[in-house]
Amino acid sequence: MIYLDNSATTLKKPAVVIEAVTNALSQLGNSGRGVHEDSLKSSEVIFQTRQALCRLFNGEQARQIVFTSGATESLNLAIEGMLFGNDHVITTALEHNSVLRPLYRMQKEKGLMLTIIPADKQGNLDYSDFEAAIKEQTKAIIVTHASNVTGNIVDLEKISGICEKHGLYLIVDASQSAGILSIDVQALKIDLLCFTGHKSLYGPQGTGGLYVRPGISLRPLKVGGSGIDTFNPQHPTSFPTALEAGTLNGHGIAGLGAGVHYLLDQTLEKLSQESGRISKLFYEEVSKIDDLIVYGDFSTNQRCPIVSLNLGQRDSAEISDLLSYEYGIATRSGGHCAPLMHEALGTKEQGVVRFSFSSFTTEHEIWEAIAALQKISQKG
Amino acid sequence: MIYLDNSATTLKKPAVVIEAVTNALSQLGNSGRGVHEDSLKSSEVIFQTRQALCRLFNGEQARQIVFTSGATESLNLAIEGMLFGNDHVITTALEHNSVLRPLYRMQKEKGLMLTIIPADKQGNLDYSDFEAAIKEQTKAIIVTHASNVTGNIVDLEKISGICEKHGLYLIVDASQSAGILSIDVQALKIDLLCFTGHKSLYGPQGTGGLYVRPGISLRPLKVGGSGIDTFNPQHPTSFPTALEAGTLNGHGIAGLGAGVHYLLDQTLEKLSQESGRISKLFYEEVSKIDDLIVYGDFSTNQRCPIVSLNLGQRDSAEISDLLSYEYGIATRSGGHCAPLMHEALGTKEQGVVRFSFSSFTTEHEIWEAIAALQKISQKG
Repeated sequence: MIYLDNSATTLKKPAVVIEAVTNALSQLGNSGRGVHEDSLKSSEVIFQTRQALCRLFNGEQARQIVFTSGATESLNLAIEGMLFGNDHVITTALEHNSVLRPLYRMQKEKGLMLTIIPADKQGNLDYSDFEAAIKEQTKAIIVTHASNVTGNIVDLEKISGICEKHGLYLIVDASQSAGILSIDVQALKIDLLCFTGHKSLYGPQGTGGLYVRPGISLRPLKVGGSGIDTFNPQHPTSFPTALEAGTLNGHGIAGLGAGVHYLLDQTLEKLSQESGRISKLFYEEVSKIDDLIVYGDFSTNQRCPIVSLNLGQRDSAEISDLLSYEYGIATRSGGHCAPLMHEALGTKEQGVVRFSFSSFTTEHEIWEAIAALQKISQKG
Repeated sequence: MIYLDNSATTLKKPAVVIEAVTNALSQLGNSGRGVHEDSLKSSEVIFQTRQALCRLFNGEQARQIVFTSGATESLNLAIEGMLFGNDHVITTALEHNSVLRPLYRMQKEKGLMLTIIPADKQGNLDYSDFEAAIKEQTKAIIVTHASNVTGNIVDLEKISGICEKHGLYLIVDASQSAGILSIDVQALKIDLLCFTGHKSLYGPQGTGGLYVRPGISLRPLKVGGSGIDTFNPQHPTSFPTALEAGTLNGHGIAGLGAGVHYLLDQTLEKLSQESGRISKLFYEEVSKIDDLIVYGDFSTNQRCPIVSLNLGQRDSAEISDLLSYEYGIATRSGGHCAPLMHEALGTKEQGVVRFSFSSFTTEHEIWEAIAALQKISQKG
């Protein structure tokens, strides 16, 4: 199988990640639930992963990195934990359902006010729309760093400037960008950065987290055992425990730590350059195919390694199935959990066939995929 | 290190669990997010784990098993998802903070009414207290199946009878009992069974879930991407997707599946008999030590393999540290996230030294632990 579905999850993990999880499974006790060697080892591995993530995102302190089961939990925690019923929040048509559905739910249940900035046919935003949407009750802008459908990048510097000017919180969904694009939470004045572990950070599924700017407190999604302060009826408020109830996923976090260390050692720049080069090559070659339509803005190299396309009017699922069953190429078709993006692109019915690459994708695999699309196109 | 802290997490996992996770880390795509081989493999592994858990708990259908990141998430989901502000709920002094803190929070934030059934000095409940506590607004009884401090078991049959008689929901915290005690959700008419994966089900950390009785709907803790029904602004309501937003922890769930299959193959009875025998031997021998106090009810063999104790008035942390640093024995001291249990036992200040065993604990390890306690006692 040629795996080109890396925006769903990176199938190929660095060997150090697999080793770290395998070792953890025979070595780790329960972090923060004892002072014996096995428990301390777990706490140590978890702290080292916090430190690595803090370094990657240039956070102030490792304890501001909070672990969750993935970006969806981070986003639900950010949204339900920060916003109230009478707040107004601005988001975009680029968002994934992990942003939209929690917002829609708060709108329905609590009367949250919501403005969604539209995207054009290339999937781009008009940044002047943000300022125009700001009201007295506007509390935050919540935005993805990169579209999971087009790979287009959102200009966080511009949005950060708007947030600063109007005193709004900035919540960023970095599901697609963490590990691909350089993110400096201090320089960008990001308040909450939500990330997943199992995509371009090369960690196992079931890992992720959020960076919380110092001084921000959120209502936790879950409360419970904390290992400290047992006799306090309330969950502790010190970070990171405030947002981490119950036993942490030590085994997964050990793998995530190895993934982030791999990324820091190899450098994000080098790995992104590689997946970007592969992605560009693929884009340039498939663009030559007659009835092939590519979505998104390719006028810049600053993008995530995603190429979404269709062949004429053919259903995206049909093409994706052909690629899988006849050519052994794994892609993803359909709606990609980003409904408004498809409305903007005009692909609500057809969906798109998404090819997404990682630093482990080889040029050989790309040529195979290009050849497969050429053949499918020729056969009609 | 002799690891006797299995109620915190089972450090030793069956080899098949480690293998399953290691293999999954190089084979699994994103479950439910594509129809290519790697994604389908992930969906299959996850479904097989649901089936195994359904068989273990004698559920009606595999889809009623919902995955979470652990028992704490399951309990928060059960409590916040089922109860409203004007409901009355009955719980017990045996509960862990993962039950108490979500309840206290609902009490504080929404006016939930709460009755806590006390425990006696042996950590036992008086079951007549439950009926006496029932009010018109009583909606549910939420109770642990076994105390994580004493290892005492709660008589679920009795409580289930009370629930049935009065039309109450029965929510069970099986964190300590799943994999140790036989649980038949249909026979016991359990509505929500919350379990963790990383204790006696031998799975990795970051896994767990809940069984939801067919027909019960809960407000999800998290909403977001579902892989299906992308254009619906609401999260789907079909099980198990209704309560599972975002990418599942496929890697961890593969390990949990291997753990549950190991348990089903070896049989729960055989494994529990082994840990029970070890626990009883330890209890009988340490009870002979002069100034040693054991907590809990040992008049029955129906208990979890936990022995919590103190040496005279000495601080539990001091004993646990000595065991760890001088004898290489891992135990846990202090409050164990169960504040009301300690009030009942009179160990709020002192805490308890908890020894907890698994089916992998050897008799040799037990004799080492007994000898260590004898020496610590003699040295004064």
